[in-house]
Amino acid sequence: MSDVHAGRRSRLRARSAPAQGEAAVVSRPANVRYLTGAAPAGAVLLVGHAGQDVLFGHWDPSQDPPGPRPVDDDGLRTVVLPDEDDPAEAAVRQAAEAGARAVAVEEHHLTVARHRSLARCVPGTELTDLGCAVERQRLVKDEDEITALRVAAEITDRALGELLESILVGRTERHLALELERRLVDHGADGPAFPTSVATGSHSGLAGHRPTDRRVEEGDFLTVRLGARFRGYRCQIGRTFVIGTSPADWQIELYEVVFAAQRAAREALTPGVEYREVDRAAREVLAAAGHGTALGPVTGHGVGLEIGEDPRLSPAAMGRLGPCVPVTVEPGVHLPGRGGVRIDDTLVVRSPADGGPELLTITTKELLAL
Amino acid sequence: MSDVHAGRRSRLRARSAPAQGEAAVVSRPANVRYLTGAAPAGAVLLVGHAGQDVLFGHWDPSQDPPGPRPVDDDGLRTVVLPDEDDPAEAAVRQAAEAGARAVAVEEHHLTVARHRSLARCVPGTELTDLGCAVERQRLVKDEDEITALRVAAEITDRALGELLESILVGRTERHLALELERRLVDHGADGPAFPTSVATGSHSGLAGHRPTDRRVEEGDFLTVRLGARFRGYRCQIGRTFVIGTSPADWQIELYEVVFAAQRAAREALTPGVEYREVDRAAREVLAAAGHGTALGPVTGHGVGLEIGEDPRLSPAAMGRLGPCVPVTVEPGVHLPGRGGVRIDDTLVVRSPADGGPELLTITTKELLAL
Repeated sequence: MSDVHAGRRSRLRARSAPAQGEAAVVSRPANVRYLTGAAPAGAVLLVGHAGQDVLFGHWDPSQDPPGPRPVDDDGLRTVVLPDEDDPAEAAVRQAAEAGARAVAVEEHHLTVARHRSLARCVPGTELTDLGCAVERQRLVKDEDEITALRVAAEITDRALGELLESILVGRTERHLALELERRLVDHGADGPAFPTSVATGSHSGLAGHRPTDRRVEEGDFLTVRLGARFRGYRCQIGRTFVIGTSPADWQIELYEVVFAAQRAAREALTPGVEYREVDRAAREVLAAAGHGTALGPVTGHGVGLEIGEDPRLSPAAMGRLGPCVPVTVEPGVHLPGRGGVRIDDTLVVRSPADGGPELLTITTKELLAL
Repeated sequence: MSDVHAGRRSRLRARSAPAQGEAAVVSRPANVRYLTGAAPAGAVLLVGHAGQDVLFGHWDPSQDPPGPRPVDDDGLRTVVLPDEDDPAEAAVRQAAEAGARAVAVEEHHLTVARHRSLARCVPGTELTDLGCAVERQRLVKDEDEITALRVAAEITDRALGELLESILVGRTERHLALELERRLVDHGADGPAFPTSVATGSHSGLAGHRPTDRRVEEGDFLTVRLGARFRGYRCQIGRTFVIGTSPADWQIELYEVVFAAQRAAREALTPGVEYREVDRAAREVLAAAGHGTALGPVTGHGVGLEIGEDPRLSPAAMGRLGPCVPVTVEPGVHLPGRGGVRIDDTLVVRSPADGGPELLTITTKELLAL
């Protein structure tokens, strides 16, 4: 495990601070976790210009370490700071003392106020911008990361499957969401990957719907979106069901359109394809059916230590898919006052020679009447 | 309701941007909610230099507004932006177009990268620092805010009370935490104020403990920390129980020490008293009993739209309490390998003439054997 993280830090050092004598200070929590295996709140990592990496944080002896502790190996030292010290300041000072002539920081994470404090600490050292170097490195997952996502997806499928066997009519969106989250934990998740969404009746199909006290009724469309977090890795599934014995014609039609759009985007997932192409595949199908404006800004997004990572599968996104990049494909249509359909999967991009995209979330996408 | 928010914006305009022609752009979510009543993710508020206030955000027609919508009154206009536009940029541009010669922004919130983009949008306009002006204004709560906290506390007391009537032995920390959060929602909370902490046996007394699969056993100390969120307002309670019929001597002794420390801090809550005095009252009692280093960095903190607000009741904090400031008092001691005690209350500072501090979290602090 320590080799993995040391290897990631080495790659970061080589790619992002190639200029002689430039260190990097990483502060975004998911990035710190990716590079060290640890996730104590507020910890900051120094990737030293000459290989000496140090993790600065607060570990109050009266508190649990809030996550896995970093491996103390030859490559990574851990420094516990008093509560009032900023780990980023400690990191930047250490870099300067070790002789770095410049320190690259995450300007898309540090606030203006905090950055100013850092600059004041090390007046003789230039602060440059690391940019999204770590996020770019996180894009392609190794086999252990994909395994964690696979397990997260299995847990998610299981929790959803159990719910579908229970009585849904008369229960509130809130209770169903809480129930799903309890089952995720029961089946081994660290917790939910994101707040679970349950939307019934005229709420169904809304992308960011937060569960309310509305009760499930016969004839409703019911859309659920949930995901497990396992070893820090987050997946996502979304499914739509009909409550009762026979869906209405408008429900069958709408479901078929969204299903077709989602399938088109899934089938577009190949190494070398542009992000915007995947998005277009879904958007075109929806537009042909008169729902061209229904889709939100993205058809899908990367997943990993964060539920929303690069890449963004959107019309203006620049870049191409590569193998071992996990993404969601999550189009939907909401008809105000009536409800709608959302279908979300998590898949790993694989070359056709390797079988094409690997579907992680295998719960059936057939329209079930429950 | 709209008068309340318009009034808050006027006070901010008067106090924080008194120089002629300076507008303010507020981006921290709790601050935007405080000033507008709305909480759509990422919305940014322009407090115009001459009274024209505008709220910029993304409201995707296919999504619920993720919270209360702002009241469209004479004082506040709402502008819905395309997804790819940064509301902060729109706000700063609007201020410049309306003739502001400078715009105060929240440098403790905006990242370096985002601030740079704003500056590039309005090259002829100076960006200054608003600092923590809104946080300072939020310190003293009005009666409606205190009412919301009172209701949050009632919900919290009720959820905790119900749990105490159920069987605890054999249940895991995780399940008890999920159960408590379900009951908060059942009794009318928007949701939990923060992640619920349940800690049993040798975990008990740890301040930031995240629930695990450890099961409650006879003889354990069990510490719980939870809180409801109601209309955005968050309260906090923490209690310690003994599982089984008779506490051990060490448990009774430790409980009495923490109880005495917590009572000393509660009794110190008076308008005019220094924040550090309240902290010292608790720390002294613990130190006299040999637990001087057990307490973390703070004895308590403010609550409101955020669970951790000003003031901080800590040794180095500068400032004095005033009436209508709600705070927690939350000392504790953890003995590694054995467990410990935490006792947390939420109170509103009131003058002695008004009856002294108003205790919101009224669940008994007597050591119960469950």
